[in-house]
Amino acid sequence: MYTVTFQVSNLPPVSIDANAGENLLEVARKANVVIDAPCSGNGSCGKCRVRLVSGYLDSPPARQISTEEYEAGWRLACCSKISANVTIQVPDIASAYQSRMKVADLDTPEEVAIFDDLRRQMLEAGIVFKSDLSFLPLELEEPTLDDTMPDNERLARAVEAATGCPEERIIIPYSVLKDLSWVLRESEFRVKCVISRDGDRIQIRDVLPSTNDEPLVGFALDLGTTSLAGVLVDLETGKILSKASCGNGQIRYGADVINRIIESGKWLDGRSGRRRLQVAVVKESIIPMLVQMYQQAHINPRRIYRMVLAGNTTMNHLLLGLYSDPIRMEPFVPSFFRANYIYVRDIGLKMNPLAELIVAPNVGSYVGGDITAGAFASMLWNSPELSLFIDLGTNGELVFGNNEFLMSCACSAGPAFEGGDISCGMRATDGAIEACAIDKETLEPTLTVVGGAEPVGICGSGIIDIIAELFRCGAINGKGRFIREHRRIVRDHNDMAAYVLAFKEDTGGVKDVVINEVDIDNFIRAKGAIFSATTTMLTSLGFTVEDIQRVFVAGGIGSGINMKNAVTIGMFPDISLDHFHYIGNSSQTGAYAMLLSGDARAKVEEIGRSMTYLELSTEPGYMDAFVGACFLPHTDAALFPSVAELS
Amino acid sequence: MYTVTFQVSNLPPVSIDANAGENLLEVARKANVVIDAPCSGNGSCGKCRVRLVSGYLDSPPARQISTEEYEAGWRLACCSKISANVTIQVPDIASAYQSRMKVADLDTPEEVAIFDDLRRQMLEAGIVFKSDLSFLPLELEEPTLDDTMPDNERLARAVEAATGCPEERIIIPYSVLKDLSWVLRESEFRVKCVISRDGDRIQIRDVLPSTNDEPLVGFALDLGTTSLAGVLVDLETGKILSKASCGNGQIRYGADVINRIIESGKWLDGRSGRRRLQVAVVKESIIPMLVQMYQQAHINPRRIYRMVLAGNTTMNHLLLGLYSDPIRMEPFVPSFFRANYIYVRDIGLKMNPLAELIVAPNVGSYVGGDITAGAFASMLWNSPELSLFIDLGTNGELVFGNNEFLMSCACSAGPAFEGGDISCGMRATDGAIEACAIDKETLEPTLTVVGGAEPVGICGSGIIDIIAELFRCGAINGKGRFIREHRRIVRDHNDMAAYVLAFKEDTGGVKDVVINEVDIDNFIRAKGAIFSATTTMLTSLGFTVEDIQRVFVAGGIGSGINMKNAVTIGMFPDISLDHFHYIGNSSQTGAYAMLLSGDARAKVEEIGRSMTYLELSTEPGYMDAFVGACFLPHTDAALFPSVAELS
Repeated sequence: MYTVTFQVSNLPPVSIDANAGENLLEVARKANVVIDAPCSGNGSCGKCRVRLVSGYLDSPPARQISTEEYEAGWRLACCSKISANVTIQVPDIASAYQSRMKVADLDTPEEVAIFDDLRRQMLEAGIVFKSDLSFLPLELEEPTLDDTMPDNERLARAVEAATGCPEERIIIPYSVLKDLSWVLRESEFRVKCVISRDGDRIQIRDVLPSTNDEPLVGFALDLGTTSLAGVLVDLETGKILSKASCGNGQIRYGADVINRIIESGKWLDGRSGRRRLQVAVVKESIIPMLVQMYQQAHINPRRIYRMVLAGNTTMNHLLLGLYSDPIRMEPFVPSFFRANYIYVRDIGLKMNPLAELIVAPNVGSYVGGDITAGAFASMLWNSPELSLFIDLGTNGELVFGNNEFLMSCACSAGPAFEGGDISCGMRATDGAIEACAIDKETLEPTLTVVGGAEPVGICGSGIIDIIAELFRCGAINGKGRFIREHRRIVRDHNDMAAYVLAFKEDTGGVKDVVINEVDIDNFIRAKGAIFSATTTMLTSLGFTVEDIQRVFVAGGIGSGINMKNAVTIGMFPDISLDHFHYIGNSSQTGAYAMLLSGDARAKVEEIGRSMTYLELSTEPGYMDAFVGACFLPHTDAALFPSVAELS
Repeated sequence: MYTVTFQVSNLPPVSIDANAGENLLEVARKANVVIDAPCSGNGSCGKCRVRLVSGYLDSPPARQISTEEYEAGWRLACCSKISANVTIQVPDIASAYQSRMKVADLDTPEEVAIFDDLRRQMLEAGIVFKSDLSFLPLELEEPTLDDTMPDNERLARAVEAATGCPEERIIIPYSVLKDLSWVLRESEFRVKCVISRDGDRIQIRDVLPSTNDEPLVGFALDLGTTSLAGVLVDLETGKILSKASCGNGQIRYGADVINRIIESGKWLDGRSGRRRLQVAVVKESIIPMLVQMYQQAHINPRRIYRMVLAGNTTMNHLLLGLYSDPIRMEPFVPSFFRANYIYVRDIGLKMNPLAELIVAPNVGSYVGGDITAGAFASMLWNSPELSLFIDLGTNGELVFGNNEFLMSCACSAGPAFEGGDISCGMRATDGAIEACAIDKETLEPTLTVVGGAEPVGICGSGIIDIIAELFRCGAINGKGRFIREHRRIVRDHNDMAAYVLAFKEDTGGVKDVVINEVDIDNFIRAKGAIFSATTTMLTSLGFTVEDIQRVFVAGGIGSGINMKNAVTIGMFPDISLDHFHYIGNSSQTGAYAMLLSGDARAKVEEIGRSMTYLELSTEPGYMDAFVGACFLPHTDAALFPSVAELS
């Protein structure tokens, strides 16, 4: 038995006993020390770097660590075994996450304009934005010796008088009864109730003194595999009171849903994996995000009466703490598509005790509530035009159809669109290269950086531009390999080439901002997955890309996405650029609508029920299509006539 | 600031800081040290005796402590102030309680016979004992690649096929969804559901592997001011699986409901009184009682799906943690008479997460669910005969009526019927004198002792006999003062006389078993309260005691009660002894019936709605009637002709 000590900046060191041969990443998890491990510890991503401070660690050199770094003590935690007492320095991942995340979606004028436009379209489509939750002011008769009716009956009779709903259909739950006598006397029997209508019944959700002026609040959460975005909304006015984003704390259990599910099935120190994964997202992501919003907008959590969750099927299951192995194992059966009767308290969030948790419905094991909510927000269900909806997340999900039919499918794109799996990748926040042009002759880049500062990394839309430009300039070939020599094209000891977008000497940064062949390879596989999913789904329906009349692009890739370049690299089909529309975080927009509107909830429910699901992994031809698409722009150049014209 | 150290036998000493002048009883409560204080610390009951071990305590001599005891260090905690560092020895009240309590109601053949007889009468009256909770065995189709319906829909469809209830009216709550996927696969899709029917809907309460053979359990609790009695019942068969009784842990906050409410309004160290009172009964009484029953009958708490609570209005409110001050303050308005939508988890009990808490309805601030449940069990509502129901608890409650009308009232009898406020009082358990005859010439007693052992105390039925016999023998006068000299009649330094029932030399006990003039006085006031309530209520309706056709006596006084002696002391009206029936703990019997029978719940509800309530405190003539009844048998001897014949 050895002692392993972890040093994390600004925190007291943590020591734990470990047996010889134990994996360092597992030991860190036991000690509740957070180490970034998007690949769930299979040695591929190289993000779990730690530094050996003293003692000895059984850890071989790794491809992702240079000789100098190895000599300086850097190791991959997932490839290290305990064989002596050892002290380890762990990079502060929390701040690393933070730096990779932007503060909130809906944070730029462009995003707000997109949001407002979708909201307008919903209204035009007849969706009524009127919550079934509302305030009801009441003045009760004070009791006397001749009128000693108990408080709950007194309240119910007053509600009956105000609404016409007969007393026996008025529900007063325990959380209201608990403080009722106190509130009535404290407010001198002048109160306002929070009520909701459920069929012919009225439920009293809260009783507040009439002087209380807090808003009636709802919480819409877009729960992604990599990142979360939330808004607090005034349910009376629809106004957004606060917004925030953050990384998904489950990321240390794996970057993709499959690795997360595997981890959720493992017991560790008497704690089930389901519980650990649930706690990771609730305590490390959702609660800190909420606290930030509470403080920013002065919200009392007791005044939050409803939450809408839009997430993929796996995220839904893991947030609810469900047994999820059947999702990943044949025949791929989730616990639910539609789940009702769930409360916010069930997942350990403290809001109003009666706050319900409304889950946007899933369609299949790999098409979830983020897509039903997002497809709703895209409005493709409201027009006869044949439309393609593409959500560029860690999973890429696609919906094709119109007001008569909807088909969906999913492909594993990996986190590249959100800057994951890319050595200098980051979200579209300050310092991110979001657009890039490269001079064909000089190969010198012209960069557009979020916030106008010096570049520190590259976000999804920037990567698309860079690859497209390098390809247009002939710097890389169709396989993504560098084929020109230039002072900006550097090679490491393994002969892996990289293009330097910004030298650290020029930016004053700690390292060069580069894109290397592994990055390009990762991105090509991501875009290949999207394109092959598109053509496979169309083929299965007897359509071709020429039939597409509109393309809605959603996701965290950013409003800076250059559709022409996305076509150039073969990510989107080569159709008229006028057809493309970026609609931002449509999953969050859909969740917002579901918070406020019973019509929206009914429509999302209908979309969930009517949408068919195409399982690509068992679809003949998909693997061939994917291999063909892992090329710039495609092995079949005839599919991209406009790109051929470029060269 | 001084240090106060409490020594409790078998426990580590507890030290706490206290200011000069602080009350010792309050300091003990802060330190969470349990000191018996039935009178809530007003110096009247003398039960809060502690012993000064070292240091100094500002504490005057008290009536309840002899000179020898004072010299030995005995003090009343409620009359002591901190003025130095001090160490205090506290008698072990937990074991003292235990010794005063019997193990369970329904523990003797007599009590079981009474219970079975009431159950039979209910069946004859057409009450159906069939719970709406039941098991539903199901074999589900296993999913395949061609049938990937999610688990919750699969379950709902199987329930639809088995019951005919359409899928959209089948409710699957979160607690069932949580483990559904796991249970289905673990059981190879052969399960049994626990279902309940609510109107046209079916709620799935649980899904268990079909091999599970645990019973479907309910919990009926009679929650009294002084003591609790509970049973666990098999909801399929009605069989009692286990039973237990214990003292109410709130007793240290006062013996009666008024003192409890006052305490529940006080904050102490940042904890509300409501919370402290709730915790006292839940954690110190109900949970230990349940654990004892779980162990005895091998019950898994997750299999308890329903609880019925029968308690007085204040006990209901304090158990639910409600703000209760309005109950004791004019105009005496409780939070509720009828409360629905309450769950067992709301009071901090861990049973099945969906287990509901059904509360027998209250009728007024001082006539509660114990009386509606008890009046139901007495069956007086099922006959045209004019019947009087008397529940002898810490509060005495009375119901008079028949199948056409019911009137109720309440009087404060104090804990004397349960052996409280009596120097050698105890519950009807081993060692309790439950019956007594005294020879008129020799004044020598003949004792009947529960369990046949040596006498250690006196229970309620014994006290009735002793007072009746002492009165019949001319040893005491109508005021309860001793008027004969005898070796068994001893006097203390204050000239207070006592009758020795058993000398410690004869029994080998630690002290004599006696009844003194204060005990007799306390009991005369208790019986006077009952009798004056009876006559006042009858008068208000235009009836006299001659109109009473049946008297049902309920409560913990014990099946040994001698009705003739109870008439002799003027506790019950002087009518034919054939009219009297002891019906045991009718409140618990009623709660048992409510657990099993929707009919019973509906009937108790109807009794609660139809019963009128007479507030004695504002009723003209009640105080005069009470004063007249505080005499043996009564100041108006003409009311007790049969007693006059005795002398």
